Amino acid sequence: MAVDHQEGTSPSPGDRPVTGDLFDPACPTRELLDRIGDRWTSMLVKVLAHAYPGECGFAELRRAAPGISHKMLSQTLRHLIDDGLVSRRVEAAVPPRTWYSLTELGRTLDEPLAAVRAWAEANMPAIRDARRRGR
Amino acid sequence: MAVDHQEGTSPSPGDRPVTGDLFDPACPTRELLDRIGDRWTSMLVKVLAHAYPGECGFAELRRAAPGISHKMLSQTLRHLIDDGLVSRRVEAAVPPRTWYSLTELGRTLDEPLAAVRAWAEANMPAIRDARRRGR
Repeated sequence: MAVDHQEGTSPSPGDRPVTGDLFDPACPTRELLDRIGDRWTSMLVKVLAHAYPGECGFAELRRAAPGISHKMLSQTLRHLIDDGLVSRRVEAAVPPRTWYSLTELGRTLDEPLAAVRAWAEANMPAIRDARRRGR
Repeated sequence: MAVDHQEGTSPSPGDRPVTGDLFDPACPTRELLDRIGDRWTSMLVKVLAHAYPGECGFAELRRAAPGISHKMLSQTLRHLIDDGLVSRRVEAAVPPRTWYSLTELGRTLDEPLAAVRAWAEANMPAIRDARRRGR
């Protein structure tokens, strides 16, 4: 059976990304999918999208995502910043305060992630039924 | 800052799932997001959606997702089956052959996942730029 291999990007030696094969093990889009598919990323993007174009403080983000550890929140924010999806602003107060907001690029990620969250929400009852039948 | 807490499902003591809070640590939708957000799930749903309503064999799925181990493919398929997203059919041949296909529910998952894949694909160049600038 033929399989469609159209999506994805492959690493290229210079500046120019080359559209390639999502199924290529070296495809960076796969790494990106792992990052943006993760539950904490999805939750933080949702919270920050709600505040957009406003900012949220670290403590506020932590309160909005109960269950996230300090370390996991720092790490998830670091990845979002590295990927250009979140920007970080340090306010010269005493003590200094740090603020986080979605970049324009990050804001565009909320729409597809919201579609996945909405699917999960809408179909959770059917999935719980399937799990119960499988027991 | 107010945070929208409308999405998600909370566990309920009986058969009836209760719409609840995605940010509740016990929310099963969060567990589901982790599963469906994972790269292999996204890839397998894509491959099976392409074949839909046809079936794919194990070896064919493995070829279509280079880099996936035998164990990871088995485990991902097991989760998809448990969640009612994939069905498994054993063909009484010698040796028996096993076929996998998306259920109707599984087919509906391809659309939101395709939106995330498309976002990742379209924005990978901007993200690679951000990573390069961050170095």
